Amino acid sequence: MKKPWGGRFGKGTDRVVEEFTASVAFDAALSPFDIAGSIAHARTLARAGVISSDEADRLVSALSEIGAEIKRGDFTFRDDLEDVHMNIEAALKERLGDLGGKLHTGRSRNDQVSVDTRLFVKDRAAQAAGHLQRLRRTILDRARQHLGALMPGYTHLQHAQPVLLSHWLLAYWEMFHRDGRRFRQAASSADASPLGSGALAGVPYPLDRDYTARLLGLSGPTGNSMDAVSDRDFVLDFLYAAAVTAMHLSRLAEELVVFSSVEFGYVVLPDGYATGSSIMPQKKNPDVAELVRGKTGRVYGDLISLLVTMKGLPLTYNRDLQEDKEPLFDAARTVIDSICVTAGMLSEVTFDTGRMERALMGGFITATDCADYLVAKGMNFREAHETVGRMVMHLEKEGKGFADLAPETFRKFSPLFGEDIALTLTADASVKTRSIFGGTAPQRVAEMIERASAVEDGEI
Amino acid sequence: MKKPWGGRFGKGTDRVVEEFTASVAFDAALSPFDIAGSIAHARTLARAGVISSDEADRLVSALSEIGAEIKRGDFTFRDDLEDVHMNIEAALKERLGDLGGKLHTGRSRNDQVSVDTRLFVKDRAAQAAGHLQRLRRTILDRARQHLGALMPGYTHLQHAQPVLLSHWLLAYWEMFHRDGRRFRQAASSADASPLGSGALAGVPYPLDRDYTARLLGLSGPTGNSMDAVSDRDFVLDFLYAAAVTAMHLSRLAEELVVFSSVEFGYVVLPDGYATGSSIMPQKKNPDVAELVRGKTGRVYGDLISLLVTMKGLPLTYNRDLQEDKEPLFDAARTVIDSICVTAGMLSEVTFDTGRMERALMGGFITATDCADYLVAKGMNFREAHETVGRMVMHLEKEGKGFADLAPETFRKFSPLFGEDIALTLTADASVKTRSIFGGTAPQRVAEMIERASAVEDGEI
Amino acid sequence: MKKPWGGRFGKGTDRVVEEFTASVAFDAALSPFDIAGSIAHARTLARAGVISSDEADRLVSALSEIGAEIKRGDFTFRDDLEDVHMNIEAALKERLGDLGGKLHTGRSRNDQVSVDTRLFVKDRAAQAAGHLQRLRRTILDRARQHLGALMPGYTHLQHAQPVLLSHWLLAYWEMFHRDGRRFRQAASSADASPLGSGALAGVPYPLDRDYTARLLGLSGPTGNSMDAVSDRDFVLDFLYAAAVTAMHLSRLAEELVVFSSVEFGYVVLPDGYATGSSIMPQKKNPDVAELVRGKTGRVYGDLISLLVTMKGLPLTYNRDLQEDKEPLFDAARTVIDSICVTAGMLSEVTFDTGRMERALMGGFITATDCADYLVAKGMNFREAHETVGRMVMHLEKEGKGFADLAPETFRKFSPLFGEDIALTLTADASVKTRSIFGGTAPQRVAEMIERASAVEDGEI
Amino acid sequence: MKKPWGGRFGKGTDRVVEEFTASVAFDAALSPFDIAGSIAHARTLARAGVISSDEADRLVSALSEIGAEIKRGDFTFRDDLEDVHMNIEAALKERLGDLGGKLHTGRSRNDQVSVDTRLFVKDRAAQAAGHLQRLRRTILDRARQHLGALMPGYTHLQHAQPVLLSHWLLAYWEMFHRDGRRFRQAASSADASPLGSGALAGVPYPLDRDYTARLLGLSGPTGNSMDAVSDRDFVLDFLYAAAVTAMHLSRLAEELVVFSSVEFGYVVLPDGYATGSSIMPQKKNPDVAELVRGKTGRVYGDLISLLVTMKGLPLTYNRDLQEDKEPLFDAARTVIDSICVTAGMLSEVTFDTGRMERALMGGFITATDCADYLVAKGMNFREAHETVGRMVMHLEKEGKGFADLAPETFRKFSPLFGEDIALTLTADASVKTRSIFGGTAPQRVAEMIERASAVEDGEI
Repeated sequence: MKKPWGGRFGKGTDRVVEEFTASVAFDAALSPFDIAGSIAHARTLARAGVISSDEADRLVSALSEIGAEIKRGDFTFRDDLEDVHMNIEAALKERLGDLGGKLHTGRSRNDQVSVDTRLFVKDRAAQAAGHLQRLRRTILDRARQHLGALMPGYTHLQHAQPVLLSHWLLAYWEMFHRDGRRFRQAASSADASPLGSGALAGVPYPLDRDYTARLLGLSGPTGNSMDAVSDRDFVLDFLYAAAVTAMHLSRLAEELVVFSSVEFGYVVLPDGYATGSSIMPQKKNPDVAELVRGKTGRVYGDLISLLVTMKGLPLTYNRDLQEDKEPLFDAARTVIDSICVTAGMLSEVTFDTGRMERALMGGFITATDCADYLVAKGMNFREAHETVGRMVMHLEKEGKGFADLAPETFRKFSPLFGEDIALTLTADASVKTRSIFGGTAPQRVAEMIERASAVEDGEI
Repeated sequence: MKKPWGGRFGKGTDRVVEEFTASVAFDAALSPFDIAGSIAHARTLARAGVISSDEADRLVSALSEIGAEIKRGDFTFRDDLEDVHMNIEAALKERLGDLGGKLHTGRSRNDQVSVDTRLFVKDRAAQAAGHLQRLRRTILDRARQHLGALMPGYTHLQHAQPVLLSHWLLAYWEMFHRDGRRFRQAASSADASPLGSGALAGVPYPLDRDYTARLLGLSGPTGNSMDAVSDRDFVLDFLYAAAVTAMHLSRLAEELVVFSSVEFGYVVLPDGYATGSSIMPQKKNPDVAELVRGKTGRVYGDLISLLVTMKGLPLTYNRDLQEDKEPLFDAARTVIDSICVTAGMLSEVTFDTGRMERALMGGFITATDCADYLVAKGMNFREAHETVGRMVMHLEKEGKGFADLAPETFRKFSPLFGEDIALTLTADASVKTRSIFGGTAPQRVAEMIERASAVEDGEI
Repeated sequence: MKKPWGGRFGKGTDRVVEEFTASVAFDAALSPFDIAGSIAHARTLARAGVISSDEADRLVSALSEIGAEIKRGDFTFRDDLEDVHMNIEAALKERLGDLGGKLHTGRSRNDQVSVDTRLFVKDRAAQAAGHLQRLRRTILDRARQHLGALMPGYTHLQHAQPVLLSHWLLAYWEMFHRDGRRFRQAASSADASPLGSGALAGVPYPLDRDYTARLLGLSGPTGNSMDAVSDRDFVLDFLYAAAVTAMHLSRLAEELVVFSSVEFGYVVLPDGYATGSSIMPQKKNPDVAELVRGKTGRVYGDLISLLVTMKGLPLTYNRDLQEDKEPLFDAARTVIDSICVTAGMLSEVTFDTGRMERALMGGFITATDCADYLVAKGMNFREAHETVGRMVMHLEKEGKGFADLAPETFRKFSPLFGEDIALTLTADASVKTRSIFGGTAPQRVAEMIERASAVEDGEI
Repeated sequence: MKKPWGGRFGKGTDRVVEEFTASVAFDAALSPFDIAGSIAHARTLARAGVISSDEADRLVSALSEIGAEIKRGDFTFRDDLEDVHMNIEAALKERLGDLGGKLHTGRSRNDQVSVDTRLFVKDRAAQAAGHLQRLRRTILDRARQHLGALMPGYTHLQHAQPVLLSHWLLAYWEMFHRDGRRFRQAASSADASPLGSGALAGVPYPLDRDYTARLLGLSGPTGNSMDAVSDRDFVLDFLYAAAVTAMHLSRLAEELVVFSSVEFGYVVLPDGYATGSSIMPQKKNPDVAELVRGKTGRVYGDLISLLVTMKGLPLTYNRDLQEDKEPLFDAARTVIDSICVTAGMLSEVTFDTGRMERALMGGFITATDCADYLVAKGMNFREAHETVGRMVMHLEKEGKGFADLAPETFRKFSPLFGEDIALTLTADASVKTRSIFGGTAPQRVAEMIERASAVEDGEI
């Protein structure tokens, strides 16, 4: 196939080189955005008088047709046509003859691929944000459903203080809420039209770049043509948002894996989100959670991949930039799928709240409350901590917990303990005292659920 | 030294473990923020009636004193006191006795270290943004100074089209402008007070968290205590902003290295920003630019380091989180220093504009203009491209450039060439045609310099 | 489709989960190795008397048939069959009925996928090492062809000392030689048979694991079943070898990009390994070199991806491990292709040795020789360096080089300069003095070419 | 301070630049190796007749003196002297006058820093390998001590099959054994002397490079001077060995964290390797294990840092290479410390084998044995798996385990079950059947312990 740049070349491209440099195997994913960009460019050319408005109409109609064929799967992409842009252009020429060639006036592949990628990022960032919202609503549903249920709160995977299951769920709401913001920032980074930047210096046609931007739903034109064709910050912003989201998902996945172990037994995964073993008939494995956790690696890899590619590149466009696509596509698919399966899994998971509450008994999870009790009676905190620490060591040796003690035994450690100590040391009493904003007290958590729901409904 | 948590332990910490777990060697950098956080906490305790206002005054005054000592370098941090928090608390107790111990009421190291780190991030993000602005103003100064100077614009490090030196400079203005926004986003991520979250569940004291936030210049309290003590997104946001900035700096550094080679000779580095060789007496090396480029690696490393540490961590606080500090401190120092030396270097670099202009002659850098000329005469673009490509191949073999040709020779390739072709193919004429918004035409670039200056002055 | 583990499940797998967990879209690449592993397992089962030797023959024959179909592209992989193993097993059962099911006796997918991946790594490591050797032989050919040609040697991209073009080429021979060793180490890490490890604890059949290993061309069985099913070190070793190779390739690619700029002009890329611009008719871009350089990012990303996935995984098999495949496949393809196109490009590149030699004149590239001259006459090195440094600064201001000076002008800077100084400062004389082992003197370089050739021929 | 390269410079280095480029703050760690390299170089200069043997003696004696002062902490490094090399050289000149300057004859900082770093890598790789061996011996001691103790083996953190605690321990022996090999490979990569390579082209003195290598305990000289001064593969090899080791340590750390949770309760960490909470008096946190796990991030970061720095660097030395030091030093310290504390922790950890054994009862961990039983009676494996799967689902609903069933109940699911089924399904019986090489049967594990001990003692 004749290259669109073959004029000054004495010899064709090696076949192996053609394969090595071709991107059409993956960049076909850009085709709806390439079509949209071309339509906007055709309209802009007409507005500037470079082509007639009839020509523009014919271009737009042929482009729409090609777009529809691609969507239906009736379009064959050819490797020897290098990339998505040349494939579509070739089809256009086949249908419109010379007119097809005119579309490339005032445009280069450098600004064209940039606008395609920007539209892709905007689209996928919006999708990711949408799925995150669905996940957050699932969290709120589950939090509302289980309001009041208690569980051990952990630091260092050790029992720390009792918390509400709903409070634990809301912690993830916060993370995924921040993630939504990051995807919106990525969308905003992508939200400018580079068309008109040409190869690097701007084009010598009086194109109305604001008009092009408007047609594409973009906020305006980019400011510097050299930067425009070599900027991939918006891709990085997307990859970064994906990486942090994957990290948050991996934390939830880790907890679901640990919580669904026989030893913890706090959650039962839905059959549809678990798999078995081809060898061990009893197994019910949290494969979905594990894959979500494991896929964090590839999303981090995608981010580092593009950061490395960009490092030390001179201005403006260099072919290295073609390597932005696959990490972007991979991260978009991975993170969106991961959000979706997590939302599905979370909506169907069974929380064994009975088991959680039993886990609160018998140990020392309210030791902080015990120390706070002493502080309330006038001891300074460091001393109270020391006293309770000694009690714990003593009771542990005897295989006992707070629940086993009579008030008089408490008093052996400090005369400040009164009759009310037993009641103070229940998990229920413990969470109630933490009614500070952001704390785990039931009424506070209920408030936060409502507040978060209002955020989701756009009321805040 | 007695640990603040020694009560339930039968045996002390191994010396090697003490060293392994201690963070005071690096987290002393947090001390001004730790002092500020403690002062705000003391005031909040008083407001809630947990301590008297006189006690608060004495705490605040002692804390201020300690802060001043640290600043003067008169304070000795002890490794066996684990971290910056315990060092300051120990000093407080030494001075105030029991009262010193009261400060820890309603606070845990988990929320304390979070507030310290948030204040650090806000501070360094503001610093980075400030230095970026200085760098951008330097860029604008140089762009203004050299307005009109021409240079070859490159794609693939090959001559592509003529551009203005000022246009090249403005491309970097765009990048560093986006970087400023990223640091502001990082500061905004950090801008919330976790105090009151306690160890993980909230504290059982009626602390006014809005008041604490106000005292610290933070926008409000965090929303969920479990998330608050385990969230490090704001550190990641800072590291990411630093990574992208480092990437942009590495691109400029690469260009300065290439441009200061004998072969390019476009820039002469100031003596103060170059170094020599201990062996080769003629050498003047762009070491500063190379170090800026090389340090990109460590900033990327810092980002990946924390992303890895966070992956798969269950809620809430885990000691792994201590590993957030060193990458943060390293990235902050590295990126701020890199911005500063780049600004210094750029302000003193000499652009050899004569050399740049000579580089524009004799070749084919205006070949696109030649094709555009044919298009203006009615040829379609693809055919014009093909025609000019054949001309270039032909002339190259004969060792000639466009400048060597008479109009009649042009006409051998196409009858559309007229007498005006020679004038059209000067670099000067070329840039003038690119007067589209964002293009390299002189009047457009002048406008963009003013627009950017207005942005810097806060007028846009 | 019925899962091989469906017995204890009340409900089927969600469709979205099926897609999320399926690996067959990519792990079909393992099929030749899966077939080989299954054949070896069938033989081993027969040897242990678990199946009859006739049964083994029928299994082997059906497996070979399936293998041939896959190779011919006549086999349809089904997504709902999860992975390559289940697809092949299903085909086996279709053909052999119950006997097909017997093959899974004494084997689990955990040890099966491990052996497949080990065979894949061995194969691709051998391929990479082979292509590296081809690349190294190309380097030696070019070094032999151009023996004697001089070029500027660079440090900091500044002229440092003259070197032979062949010496420059041999520097890359060293790198790619080390890379070969790394791939052999990766192959050696993979070279053990995990079959017999079962799901994690070993299988309860008296299988002769040495025999299995022998059939597969592996050196022996792995030592611990729990480690065997969760070990991916051999994949990491491969990814690391690929990452360092990619780094070396990126250095060569960078030099080819810089050297093919108009300003340097040291190399002319073959038309088949360059591409043009759709806009700028004069462009001949080093796209292949740029892509090789840019792809470094993805190989680094692949390495970091698996390192992240493995971090903090408890023993033994976890589904996260499925995420080892795609980075492995991607890195293998990328690095092998990059080696191949680099070898092709290097074999056809034209070195403009005339241009290189002209670049050696007129400047100060032999300044070190000048200092060495003074040292030979008795000056200490630091002083000689200082003297020559002053000469360079002086001449540079006057726009002169060493070549412009008469001996008496040299003597203005030091009386030690004699008549022979001009001859001493030629590039030719300079390289000749560096006849130390590893140095750039022509006879030394010629020796090193022969030595390297002997290494390639296995004589060393 | 006068730079050793000041001659051609009109203006001194900016103070901020001096700080930015100085490396002495960290590279002082190289001083013992720098001294050793200088001593070897002095001897080699004398052997070549460049200096007299008396001069060499005086240099060696002064260098030894300086080395001793540095070791004692009596030597002051100055920032304005840039790096460790210039600091030592300045001290040498102070003591020996002109003679000090002669040492730099036939050497450049480029080959000097390379030899220093190579010696550092060899030293630290040997240290790491030594500590790994200590860790492996600890593992063998614990495995020997607990031989016979049973625990649940996990896949997907779900009960899979019973294994021996010693078998679990030996899995880590395998990992750390492979790590030892990687460090030895890194040492072997570093094991060559670059001295004589000069700045890039080789030195013009007849130095006996084999002799230098011999004096330094290195296996021989490097082969190409341009490669020698720009090669950092040996640093990467070390960082990679450290990264994989950190990954293995993180897996063990994760298991210790999970196993020391209240819910698992399989291990009790020694008090000396745990810490408490400043808030929660009952806490005993696995901080050391968490830090080991968390530090994986920084070691990965160190590896990626240097990979990024090296990407796309043209030959030969570029200042970017200075950025190899800090990641190397950090990774060496981090991984060696992590190995040491892990060995200490593992030697003192208490395994609650009673708790582990109780965990084996009541569930279905021997379900595979149940299926194998049916296979032994003639059922094909897939059907047996299905049958047992149905049994598990049924029993789980009734809240029962295998242990609760009478043989006749088994027979409801298959008539193949005989009286011996109960005995077959004990954990004890289960492990005994896995006597295949690498399996978990007690006699096999005992053998493997002896085999591993023999490896440690160098007998294998």
